[in-house]
Amino acid sequence: MKAIVLESKNKLSYKSFESHKADGKVVVDIKAAALNHRDVWIMKGMYPGIKYPIILGADGAGVYKNQAVIFNPSINWGINPAFQGKDFEIIGLPNNGTFAEQILIDETQLFPMPSHLDFKSAAALPLAGLTAFRVLFSRCKLKKGERVLISGIGGGVALFAFQFAVALGANVYVTSSDDAKIEKAIQMGAKGGVNYKEDDWHKKIQKEAGGFDVIIDSAGGNGFQNLLKIANFGARIGIYGGTRGAVPNLSPQLIFWKQLSILGSTMGSDDDFENMLNFVNQNHITPIVDKIFSFSECNDAFEYMESGKQFGKIVLIAK
Amino acid sequence: MKAIVLESKNKLSYKSFESHKADGKVVVDIKAAALNHRDVWIMKGMYPGIKYPIILGADGAGVYKNQAVIFNPSINWGINPAFQGKDFEIIGLPNNGTFAEQILIDETQLFPMPSHLDFKSAAALPLAGLTAFRVLFSRCKLKKGERVLISGIGGGVALFAFQFAVALGANVYVTSSDDAKIEKAIQMGAKGGVNYKEDDWHKKIQKEAGGFDVIIDSAGGNGFQNLLKIANFGARIGIYGGTRGAVPNLSPQLIFWKQLSILGSTMGSDDDFENMLNFVNQNHITPIVDKIFSFSECNDAFEYMESGKQFGKIVLIAK
Repeated sequence: MKAIVLESKNKLSYKSFESHKADGKVVVDIKAAALNHRDVWIMKGMYPGIKYPIILGADGAGVYKNQAVIFNPSINWGINPAFQGKDFEIIGLPNNGTFAEQILIDETQLFPMPSHLDFKSAAALPLAGLTAFRVLFSRCKLKKGERVLISGIGGGVALFAFQFAVALGANVYVTSSDDAKIEKAIQMGAKGGVNYKEDDWHKKIQKEAGGFDVIIDSAGGNGFQNLLKIANFGARIGIYGGTRGAVPNLSPQLIFWKQLSILGSTMGSDDDFENMLNFVNQNHITPIVDKIFSFSECNDAFEYMESGKQFGKIVLIAK
Repeated sequence: MKAIVLESKNKLSYKSFESHKADGKVVVDIKAAALNHRDVWIMKGMYPGIKYPIILGADGAGVYKNQAVIFNPSINWGINPAFQGKDFEIIGLPNNGTFAEQILIDETQLFPMPSHLDFKSAAALPLAGLTAFRVLFSRCKLKKGERVLISGIGGGVALFAFQFAVALGANVYVTSSDDAKIEKAIQMGAKGGVNYKEDDWHKKIQKEAGGFDVIIDSAGGNGFQNLLKIANFGARIGIYGGTRGAVPNLSPQLIFWKQLSILGSTMGSDDDFENMLNFVNQNHITPIVDKIFSFSECNDAFEYMESGKQFGKIVLIAK
């Protein structure tokens, strides 16, 4: 078969590759896969424990026994719903992933593909949809009618969190450094948004929205303190990333006086995945796909991912 | 009657004082009261909205209709258990408090004094006991058998959190800057403790205890990041104060990867107060009283509070 193989740090090739058969695994024919930032970071050698060569990719959709399937990217979550256990891993590291014509995978990772989706949009769902579902619902327990702010709209997880929150009937606001992305979100149902490069952006959005019950963030950094300021009393602030690094000035006073909850979240349990799929099926959520590349264009796809221009997922198709 | 009156910033006198009668309030004879840091900060003019003269004090025990009573210090919490409403106040600001021979108070604030306590120890319970109960149980949901770290042992809230956690059957560890306080805590049932002035104190306690499921902190500041490091996956970190100021280096990565919950908490709802009283009655918790002053020694008592030497509550008696 052919696969997108990381041969060494930064060296990605689409080439013939044979996976070794493994006991208890089944073979699934992959029709489409999707990129995550994780794949870019692995390519750059930023993850420990990489053994080259490796097939990257956590997200995919394909065919198994004539049935359309997608994969739960969380492997061996463990017994505690509150956190992943010691044996936890994600498809695509340390074991071979979805950027290939076939994948060897444990049958328990397979789930029926939502019937309203095609392979391309279904491949975009698993990792980002799972991450968004857990942080938004399992952790922050967003309720209908609540006001929620989603930072960095356009990223995969942020967009699913956005779509899920709109489908639930929450009042959703967004931030971005790109006015065009804010405009798109408003067309898709956001009540409003603000460009976080503006001075006092947090005061503007608070004036417009009146404070937030739930805030979903993956940036951290210097702007995080502003999120605490625009959080309502009793608000839940979900963190699923930290692209802007450490928070330099966190106020304990704001946290205890406003009874805030700052809730870390990554990936999701098997229950989270099933609940996410049910929610997607019931609400006919269709993942936003920004651009489609073929497997052979993998280097272009990774470069585009790094540009940060996308609004939605970047999909790879197996042809 | 006589009362401890704050006449202006930093001017505290024990003197004759007449409270104005107010509709719907009842008169309770106070037998004992207890100091909180809040009283010291109000004396120093650090709270907004002070109108002089005012009788300080949030904690007290006394007699109403021949029954021994204590006071719920939370007034007008409001309808949402998750946070205090806009009309929330605490006994002793903006209205007159417990450092007086009598208090005018709403009858709904009165609760039967636990029968295993005398006035002096009962007066030490309400504010700190309520704060500890909410942060430990309502917010962090400490369970029997879990490992909990309580920072700054010796303070009123920290000691109640300690006593409650031991009574529940948790494995309790403490920190302090004072080895003698750690020793006392171990005598009272702590499994271990560490002096946070030592280099790498967090590594020492982690080596000894193996990581914490729950951490209760009121310091914040530079040491807070170490608490995240010794938190187990899925840990809950309760914050009820911030005496060391802003946290300068909070890592989003630690928070999301370990699925941590950082939970702010202050005071408590009416339900929290009743649940706390039930817990104290069922487990025969006796507040730790460090030192007793008479009302006329109020300036000495405030000075002693500020010294930070105490291990337990400072009680004032009405004679």
